[in-house]
Amino acid sequence: MAVALALSETVRGTTSPNPPVGAVILDAHGHRAGAGATQPPGGPHAEVMALREAGERARGGTAFVTLEPCSHHGRTPPCTDALLDAGIAAVRYAVADPHPQARGGAEVLRAAGVDVRGGLLADEVAAGPLRAWLHSVRTGRPHVTWKYAATLDGRIAAADRTSRWISGPVSRAEVHAIRAAADAVVAGTGTIRADDAWLTVRDAAGALAERQPLRVVVGRGGIPDGARVLDSVAETVHVRTHDPAEVLAVLTDRGVVDVLLEGGPTLAGAFVRARLVDRIVAYVAPALLGDGPAALGPAGVSTITEAHRWRVEGVTMSGEDVRITAVPAVGEGGD
Amino acid sequence: MAVALALSETVRGTTSPNPPVGAVILDAHGHRAGAGATQPPGGPHAEVMALREAGERARGGTAFVTLEPCSHHGRTPPCTDALLDAGIAAVRYAVADPHPQARGGAEVLRAAGVDVRGGLLADEVAAGPLRAWLHSVRTGRPHVTWKYAATLDGRIAAADRTSRWISGPVSRAEVHAIRAAADAVVAGTGTIRADDAWLTVRDAAGALAERQPLRVVVGRGGIPDGARVLDSVAETVHVRTHDPAEVLAVLTDRGVVDVLLEGGPTLAGAFVRARLVDRIVAYVAPALLGDGPAALGPAGVSTITEAHRWRVEGVTMSGEDVRITAVPAVGEGGD
Ligand SMILES: NC(=O)c1ccc[n+]([C@@H]2O[C@H](COP(=O)([O-])OP(=O)(O)OC[C@H]3O[C@@H](n4cnc5c(N)ncnc54)[C@H](OP(=O)(O)O)[C@@H]3O)[C@@H](O)[C@H]2O)c1
Ligand SMILES: NC(=O)c1ccc[n+]([C@@H]2O[C@H](COP(=O)([O-])OP(=O)(O)OC[C@H]3O[C@@H](n4cnc5c(N)ncnc54)[C@H](OP(=O)(O)O)[C@@H]3O)[C@@H](O)[C@H]2O)c1
Repeated sequence: MAVALALSETVRGTTSPNPPVGAVILDAHGHRAGAGATQPPGGPHAEVMALREAGERARGGTAFVTLEPCSHHGRTPPCTDALLDAGIAAVRYAVADPHPQARGGAEVLRAAGVDVRGGLLADEVAAGPLRAWLHSVRTGRPHVTWKYAATLDGRIAAADRTSRWISGPVSRAEVHAIRAAADAVVAGTGTIRADDAWLTVRDAAGALAERQPLRVVVGRGGIPDGARVLDSVAETVHVRTHDPAEVLAVLTDRGVVDVLLEGGPTLAGAFVRARLVDRIVAYVAPALLGDGPAALGPAGVSTITEAHRWRVEGVTMSGEDVRITAVPAVGEGGD
Repeated sequence: MAVALALSETVRGTTSPNPPVGAVILDAHGHRAGAGATQPPGGPHAEVMALREAGERARGGTAFVTLEPCSHHGRTPPCTDALLDAGIAAVRYAVADPHPQARGGAEVLRAAGVDVRGGLLADEVAAGPLRAWLHSVRTGRPHVTWKYAATLDGRIAAADRTSRWISGPVSRAEVHAIRAAADAVVAGTGTIRADDAWLTVRDAAGALAERQPLRVVVGRGGIPDGARVLDSVAETVHVRTHDPAEVLAVLTDRGVVDVLLEGGPTLAGAFVRARLVDRIVAYVAPALLGDGPAALGPAGVSTITEAHRWRVEGVTMSGEDVRITAVPAVGEGGD
């Protein structure tokens, strides 16, 4: 299952609105016969990719899948049929499928005599590659990660608005990896105007990745002519609103499941206020500025008891910076 | 040596301007015969306390001391004499004594035929109980730890200035433990006026500790009549200046070695600007305010390349908060 999980990680950002799933087939002797991951929408699911590689060796074998196999005809036929046709004897999956149409695959397989068990590495998969998709099935809107880089004193730029660089090279590379796994990257018109932000995925040498997430600019004002976000490297949508819910509705319509909100502080404040941030990834650089804009703009809090409360999910070093991830505290909305 | 280190921790805050040292005596058979730690100024050093407990059992035994035994007549006679008189055969110490008058104890003992070795747990002792004292010997001024509690977005109070509580109970208890180990606790007149800050050491139930650090208020303005910092629980010094170096000079004259700077942001900014902060202890609460004062006020930085750069020394959870400790990056002054 660990291999299936790793495979599913490799296709994050390419499968939405479908979930990024990984699958591994062992033959009847327990030897690896095939492996695969979800293809882009309309293409085969992970199980089918793995079964294709396994061919006849799948007969009497075991399938490991990170999500309960689907049992419905969508753009592709049900995976339960494919598993049964291939003569699979046992299925192990991580997370049960909550999708109203696709769920129930385990029962279908069991009824056909397959030995089925779920729950293997379920927490890892649910918190990892399937997190955004599970969230979108549950809530009907994309999962939003707000990422920012700030100094120890909470500033994202100096008094003169310069900000290159607050965080170190390791953190900046990590941000590109997070972008690469997202369906859409969102910023306010202020960030576009101030930084001419490009919102693309690049490697350490600056080379553009082949696949680029959708770029989303939010604000009623215009995007300056010649802004880098208007180039042809990736698609860009300009949502002329101040309402975060409207932004997410537009993105839901486009099949977006996993959103990376990159700021700036004004837009982030609006999302936090609307309780539409599901996770924070903060890069805290060991630097002090003493002046300059703060990481978060007005978020509807006027006194301490109204503070938005979060729960720290993880703290690690990211090069010389501290990376803190947090999720809404229980009772704090989100979902 | 680990026991000696732990003993020295227990007397932090009570020994300045002398170092908080711990000592353990093993008899000739390797059994523990005595243990002790530095007494308040004028009282016996750690070695003497341990030798007293060991009595005749010290003869032919081994002394473990966190600092190289002193060899000079100060307010008390040299510890080297006491060790030789007691017939100690071997001495193990952690950190060499850098003090111009007191150093050289190891040589004196060796010349008298004692088996002497240094360096045991040296890093732990130098970074722990002896950190502030070693710093003060090296620089001629006290060691300054700036402690603050802020939200993820770097704020220390809400828009209406309320701040109870930003951090959780575990962090607040930790702050009292840090205060208890300090010689002096420093705050600006702004914090006294805004919060009527008491600057005392209390336990979780609110009961005052027996020993209280010196309270220091910095600012040209007055302290309001009836302010809690003016009560008789501990001594309070009001230093009527805006110059952090002047504050430290006053404290040096009073034998202060270990200073806890508690803010607020204006005073902390002045210390950071003067490069007179030697360590930061930041409690970052997983909360967002989006408004309200930042942790640090103006610190002489106008553009990003002038940012004060630090190095993260440690990151741990403190209850639900993240505690980040940092020291000046190499080349960033401090000392
Ligand atoms: N360190 C980091 O992680 C990071 C990340 C991003 C940005 N930044 C910094 O952030 C600064 C820009 O700050 P910013 O706050 O101006 O950027 P922003 O949040 O990207 O843009 C603000 C603009 O977005 C529009 N907007 C969208 N929704 C809104 C709402 N609900 N309420 C009000 N306005 C809304 C408004 O423009 P319209 O007039 O067009 O409506 C507003 O002026 C730059 O200095 C940049 O370097 C730092
Ligand atoms: N969360 C935390 O960790 C924490 C800790 C402490 C305070 N706080 C908050 O901080 C707020 C108070 O902020 P603050 O900045 O006013 O507090 P502050 O730094 O304690 O006091 C500022 C005052 O100190 C004097 N001062 C001393 N040195 C100065 C210098 N070099 N430059 C300018 N002034 C100097 C000035 O008063 P004179 O006119 O008297 O010279 C100045 O108004 C309160 O809301 C409090 O709750 C939070």
